[in-house]
Amino acid sequence: MAQKPAIPKGTRDFLPSEVAKRTYLFDTIKRVFKRYGFAPIETPSFELSSTLLGKYGEEGDRLIFRILNSGEKMRKADLEALAQDNLPRFANSLAEKALRYDLTVPFARFVVQHQNELQFPFKRYQIQPVWRADRPQHGRYQEFFQCDADVVGSDSLLHEVEFIQIFDEVLTALNLPGFDIQINNRKILTGIAEVCDVAQQIVELTVAIDKLDKIGEEGVFKELKEKGFSDLTLQKIQPLFELTGSNQEKIKHLRTFLASSEIGLKGLDELQYVFDRIAQLGLAKGTLNFDVTLARGLNYYTGAIFEVKAQGVKMGSICGGGRYDDLTALFGLKNLSGVGISFGADRIYDVLTELQLFPSDLDKSLDILIANFEPETELAHLQLLQKLRALGLAAELYPSSTKLQKQLKYANDRKARYVILVGEEERQQGKLTLKDMESGLQQQLSQAELLTKFEPLA
Amino acid sequence: MAQKPAIPKGTRDFLPSEVAKRTYLFDTIKRVFKRYGFAPIETPSFELSSTLLGKYGEEGDRLIFRILNSGEKMRKADLEALAQDNLPRFANSLAEKALRYDLTVPFARFVVQHQNELQFPFKRYQIQPVWRADRPQHGRYQEFFQCDADVVGSDSLLHEVEFIQIFDEVLTALNLPGFDIQINNRKILTGIAEVCDVAQQIVELTVAIDKLDKIGEEGVFKELKEKGFSDLTLQKIQPLFELTGSNQEKIKHLRTFLASSEIGLKGLDELQYVFDRIAQLGLAKGTLNFDVTLARGLNYYTGAIFEVKAQGVKMGSICGGGRYDDLTALFGLKNLSGVGISFGADRIYDVLTELQLFPSDLDKSLDILIANFEPETELAHLQLLQKLRALGLAAELYPSSTKLQKQLKYANDRKARYVILVGEEERQQGKLTLKDMESGLQQQLSQAELLTKFEPLA
Repeated sequence: MAQKPAIPKGTRDFLPSEVAKRTYLFDTIKRVFKRYGFAPIETPSFELSSTLLGKYGEEGDRLIFRILNSGEKMRKADLEALAQDNLPRFANSLAEKALRYDLTVPFARFVVQHQNELQFPFKRYQIQPVWRADRPQHGRYQEFFQCDADVVGSDSLLHEVEFIQIFDEVLTALNLPGFDIQINNRKILTGIAEVCDVAQQIVELTVAIDKLDKIGEEGVFKELKEKGFSDLTLQKIQPLFELTGSNQEKIKHLRTFLASSEIGLKGLDELQYVFDRIAQLGLAKGTLNFDVTLARGLNYYTGAIFEVKAQGVKMGSICGGGRYDDLTALFGLKNLSGVGISFGADRIYDVLTELQLFPSDLDKSLDILIANFEPETELAHLQLLQKLRALGLAAELYPSSTKLQKQLKYANDRKARYVILVGEEERQQGKLTLKDMESGLQQQLSQAELLTKFEPLA
Repeated sequence: MAQKPAIPKGTRDFLPSEVAKRTYLFDTIKRVFKRYGFAPIETPSFELSSTLLGKYGEEGDRLIFRILNSGEKMRKADLEALAQDNLPRFANSLAEKALRYDLTVPFARFVVQHQNELQFPFKRYQIQPVWRADRPQHGRYQEFFQCDADVVGSDSLLHEVEFIQIFDEVLTALNLPGFDIQINNRKILTGIAEVCDVAQQIVELTVAIDKLDKIGEEGVFKELKEKGFSDLTLQKIQPLFELTGSNQEKIKHLRTFLASSEIGLKGLDELQYVFDRIAQLGLAKGTLNFDVTLARGLNYYTGAIFEVKAQGVKMGSICGGGRYDDLTALFGLKNLSGVGISFGADRIYDVLTELQLFPSDLDKSLDILIANFEPETELAHLQLLQKLRALGLAAELYPSSTKLQKQLKYANDRKARYVILVGEEERQQGKLTLKDMESGLQQQLSQAELLTKFEPLA
């Protein structure tokens, strides 16, 4: 019996029109990455489980897809672990490999493994799918693409400046009318924790602050209180949530607040450098804002933290990133500073769809369809096709001499730009009719005239 | 403790220079597919296990990578099956999903699932990785890309003709000096089986014939004998292995041999049509050969069978394909004829490497490096970078003002085309030095002259 066709929940098929839009999106990002000197790498879809496990926290580990060992190896299933309901151990006995969860950990592994083949500072971009066993829901998929660019082996703040330019250039090229590039610096957060005498609880502090968008100021304070932060500390922190004014005013205010924290002041200096450079260089459509509550929950950030939001749509952040030191230490290579960003392709796709910003001609996958009237003209049509394709045009002959109406419907559905018709009369005159499918206009041309017409397009 | 970085056996990392070559290869294939009217689709990396299992034979099933069910679902492990050493059943209880094994079965599933959204004949191409739990060995990987193009919903032989043109156009564009496009027709093989009175054993016959390359004529006859083929049958078949002469001579010979088989003659007619058309249209670098022993082991082929081999290298087939009827019947959609081809990207990559056919400038990922002498000139350099990038050039400023020698080594390692040097003296004169890294020649230019120089390149 035939199976009813279906795909796993949380995964997607992409039809030609969707692939065209996704290709446009990825190509735009790639083009900008390349102009800034980034070169592409690719890593395998699955890594050794040991490479990935323990890198994303307990919750992350649960979301990693594991690959079942094949054949004989299945006999090594740890039944004791299963009996004890120790599912992670049971999984470990059955799965040596796992699908990558992000591009960052595989990249760290790659840099260490290939350190003698790379030029440092190493600037790479990587656009590949990642997999997460998340509960599928609207806009959240089990398979999705990440588009990352990172520099490792340089602590120059020039890279922070360039990544802001890259955000601006990509999103401007994608025709977004406006977007906010939020920036903070982990050193400032550390400084705040120092000034408030909670340096040891910096992780709890950033985790809570990071939820500001979701749970509001009240929620953050409730969480901090539960974590044992004193009322005095909360009183000290509170004004930071209400910092207003320009970026410069915020920095000025914090210079006073962080006066006693060396690291906090260093964070402000770094931020000031970035703001100065961006002011000198200018941005096209982006706005750069200092947001002292931006934390991004990721405890591996050590310097700049970035997040980008599109204006005019309700949507979480569409890009993120930051500076991290020592990510490669996980795999034995120490003291290698890195900074990187990531474009959230699926969310950007949704924003472009909602704001109707995709170019309208992306799904024109066929330039010319030659209508097929009779087998006798087939050879002449095939010879014409060779010439059209040599000009770089996407062209085809309808594969059978069926009703014209059916062929025109096909041309329409394929969004063909032109249909070529050669009836009895035209054939005798050595002419053909070129029908513009958008305007409906028809033109009688000789083959030479036709080829001349398309030459400049090709 | 830090982990020693490694990747699973049979998988690969790709460094920028390798990605550049692979991109060149894929882009060449895509460009030709598009010109012939094919549009891209993508399917998820993993499918429901039930979609894939049972479609590739027992051996194939064993090579399918399964995804371990997450969380609670692991408790459903079928321990009885494990105790009985029924590993496939045990695997089924643990893995609802599996990584795709090829692009053909997911494509059949896709066509049926989206039949109301597609235009028929539906011409799609698909370039995505597939995974097989094969024992890793030289040139055989557990993760590799397939590049497929298929037409479904048309039984016109025009498609066979066009696929031969596509083989020719792609491989010629890749600069292969010569290659043989082998063609056969499953109907001819069926006719042979009929004429030899072994119509019921057509599968065994094709499976054995398919091994001719590997085990020789003697080996094939040994295998057929073991399968119960009579000496009389073998005597009848034997001359076919020694068919010589031109394609036309072979067809002529077989017209006599297959005179009593309607289907066999039909196969010859189809072949004749294809040869005629190709003779009229011409091929660039390819040679089209009729090989009556070509079977490709795949029992779903029903008409044309293709295989391509590169001349001048020892390498198996680099492309394959054929016509199949009713592949979509697996998923409930009957009477949909299809024909398709596949480019073996990894083997073609190896051929291009061995014959040194990759263009030499593919790994130039940086057009211009601006040397960094002193922080004071940084802003001017960043402003120049903006202008160079606006021309479409890949350009960067070395991120710190370190020794020039180190910066030049970096430019060299990155294979940068040019380095821009602005020393004290040049700065005062409003000039810069452009160093051509290939020739070593240096030129003093104003910024305006520099931009004019690069404008036509961009």
